[in-house]
Amino acid sequence: MIGEKLQIGLAGLGTVGSGVYEALLRNRSLLEARAQISYEIRRVAVRDKRKKREVSIEEGELTEDWHDLVEDDSIDIIIELIGGREEALELIRAALSNGKPVVTGNKALLAEYGAELFRLSQSKGVPLYFEASCGGGIPIVQSLQNSLICNKVDSIVGIINGTSNYILTSMEKGNLLFAEALRRAGEKGYAEADPTLDINGWDAAHKGLILAMLAYGTPLSLDAIAVNGIEDVQPADFEFAHRLGYTIKLLVVIKRHKGEGTLELRVQPSFVPLDHIMAKVDGVFNAIAVRGDIVGETIFYGRGAGKNPTSSAVLGDVVLAMRECRLPDYHTGFHPYAEETAVLPVRETVTPYYVRFRVRDQHGVIASIAAIFAKYDIGISATSSQDGEGMQDREPWNHLVFMLHACKLGQLESALSEIEVLPCVVSEPVVFRIEAFRET
Amino acid sequence: MIGEKLQIGLAGLGTVGSGVYEALLRNRSLLEARAQISYEIRRVAVRDKRKKREVSIEEGELTEDWHDLVEDDSIDIIIELIGGREEALELIRAALSNGKPVVTGNKALLAEYGAELFRLSQSKGVPLYFEASCGGGIPIVQSLQNSLICNKVDSIVGIINGTSNYILTSMEKGNLLFAEALRRAGEKGYAEADPTLDINGWDAAHKGLILAMLAYGTPLSLDAIAVNGIEDVQPADFEFAHRLGYTIKLLVVIKRHKGEGTLELRVQPSFVPLDHIMAKVDGVFNAIAVRGDIVGETIFYGRGAGKNPTSSAVLGDVVLAMRECRLPDYHTGFHPYAEETAVLPVRETVTPYYVRFRVRDQHGVIASIAAIFAKYDIGISATSSQDGEGMQDREPWNHLVFMLHACKLGQLESALSEIEVLPCVVSEPVVFRIEAFRET
Repeated sequence: MIGEKLQIGLAGLGTVGSGVYEALLRNRSLLEARAQISYEIRRVAVRDKRKKREVSIEEGELTEDWHDLVEDDSIDIIIELIGGREEALELIRAALSNGKPVVTGNKALLAEYGAELFRLSQSKGVPLYFEASCGGGIPIVQSLQNSLICNKVDSIVGIINGTSNYILTSMEKGNLLFAEALRRAGEKGYAEADPTLDINGWDAAHKGLILAMLAYGTPLSLDAIAVNGIEDVQPADFEFAHRLGYTIKLLVVIKRHKGEGTLELRVQPSFVPLDHIMAKVDGVFNAIAVRGDIVGETIFYGRGAGKNPTSSAVLGDVVLAMRECRLPDYHTGFHPYAEETAVLPVRETVTPYYVRFRVRDQHGVIASIAAIFAKYDIGISATSSQDGEGMQDREPWNHLVFMLHACKLGQLESALSEIEVLPCVVSEPVVFRIEAFRET
Repeated sequence: MIGEKLQIGLAGLGTVGSGVYEALLRNRSLLEARAQISYEIRRVAVRDKRKKREVSIEEGELTEDWHDLVEDDSIDIIIELIGGREEALELIRAALSNGKPVVTGNKALLAEYGAELFRLSQSKGVPLYFEASCGGGIPIVQSLQNSLICNKVDSIVGIINGTSNYILTSMEKGNLLFAEALRRAGEKGYAEADPTLDINGWDAAHKGLILAMLAYGTPLSLDAIAVNGIEDVQPADFEFAHRLGYTIKLLVVIKRHKGEGTLELRVQPSFVPLDHIMAKVDGVFNAIAVRGDIVGETIFYGRGAGKNPTSSAVLGDVVLAMRECRLPDYHTGFHPYAEETAVLPVRETVTPYYVRFRVRDQHGVIASIAAIFAKYDIGISATSSQDGEGMQDREPWNHLVFMLHACKLGQLESALSEIEVLPCVVSEPVVFRIEAFRET
């Protein structure tokens, strides 16, 4: 059935789609020499055929109906880059059902419908490739599927949203307020028109869910992950972080608890020790630290988004798909192999914490807050305070920071609910976790 | 021919060999679930059957003659971990010729005989896997072969020798002399009984040659790479480096010069900017920065040596080999696809330089040295000096450092040969390159 040249159907010619189209043409001779495969882009599905585009493409190559790709017997593999959910879901279902391997970078879709699509891929024996869904050009998916395959994954800790990391880095280096840093990210093209999912942590959560499914072979749903965004990070927090030897990163944390076998899945702004390599991951760069029982700690670093890095990931998968689609029964496509795994309720998760209060300038504040922490059996490792006027955001209240020993979130929440109603406490506390990056 | 269970022949049961043996048993159910392959270790070749071993293994499984593996029709793949050169070379030749895929981590062998073995692999259609030859558990080989396959590689810059990095880190953090740092590395098990190849840069050079062959698809021989080791690094150099905003790392640098298409290949102690993430790669960790034309900058970080990390890499390849050896005609094995590529003579390579002289404490020293640099058209970006008595090594001469703008090594050598004979200069200069890590 498969001819001399592999025939590619490309759905979507937006930013990444056109990057993939260009790269397939530009580096063709290199790709064909390395992979010993020759290929042709058979058909490209777009929303509007007449739209002006940067890539030069003949109109006959275009269609406005993706069914033309999925139902075309001469097409061997499908690249899905239309984005969105319902239509992309329908497309991938149809392609897999029609025996066509699919390459996608659709993280929101896989986070929500991954379990279903991986099952469909398995039952049809048709692979679904998704390197581009996590970490842009960073080869984390193929590494988990291949090079690191012998490892039980102890943990994955990642900075996997470039927009939020860019915002945090410019707050830190430029001493900016969140809103100003967000505005600048938009100007530079590092934040989309609607940056909601980047800021509220959900884009990182989508990627985290995909990595967790892959690492633990288990189906997971959106409610498995606890998510906090970066909206509440303030310049004051960076001042305290530096003073205490940390920086602040939005981290996705995925951990397996050996005893109970439960998974811990969360996204939250976190204190990262300044001397750890993850503290040096700045701007739009991403990094994913994988700790395996055999390999130990590994870190993958690179551009986590953008036309070209994401195209690189798509093309890595396309070549794999082209190689493997000639074969009857072997592919690296992923299927969940483990039972549904219990998720540790977020209130049960244990880390040290940074808590910042705004308090009135009066005697006995530390004592009264510390007494409540003591009542809930939460140890204090350090405190630090600052006159609000001296801080960049110039508020009239003092900032008071507690660095807390590891405790359950539930314990902390109970303590905080009592502390919040103290007359000396002016507003809700800012709470970040502290990631020590030590072996557990 | 291939039965239900893949049959593995393991040659070598030293540190890595026993790690692989244990991991194949310990994580068997995980590996079989993920890869959907079941396997058996059929036979293990060792030098001495009666030697006491940490792994428990039945004597019937052992043989003292590796031919028993290579010539056994029931064995599907061979893992070569006997080390050394002549015998390993003979083993791999025989295995490939017999149609058995080989997994090896033998970097010295591949650096010297890679071109021949890759050709043999290609002509026989039998793959040779070598993830474990570079960077321990870091999946750099598979990433170059698969995920990053669409990229023209602009450069690879790596810290890929754990022993030398451990020594440099302890010189830096502990303010130690080279000899003392080496002794401590030996005590901790981070330096072998004979650490020559780690210290003189050749272990890094072997790995660099393998990565260069892979990245550029070209055969290369040992004389293609210019190599300097870390023997001459002194505490004074770390003092100056810090003062100027750098640290010192032993780097392998592989670059393609776009215009002429030549390759630049070298290993040398180098100044790395303190704010670059590579400056944070400490101790026995390795990191490899790959810049591709599409993906941009990526960095792979992890444990570059040791039983377990290297076992992880071997097992990643073993699974790939097991998957692919069932197939008639597809494998990710590497074959050179490019013509032999010209190597830029080291005298033609261009970088900024750090040069440290020991000089007499007299007037006009800077002027007379600077005049010679000017004569050879070499710009000076900074100078720094230090009374020798104040330095940790307490020599009577002053240290005088020049930071030089980018120039050809040939130019620099000509200037240095004139400077060295000045009466004010006491000893041969210490010369390190400065790696800016900027896009070229």
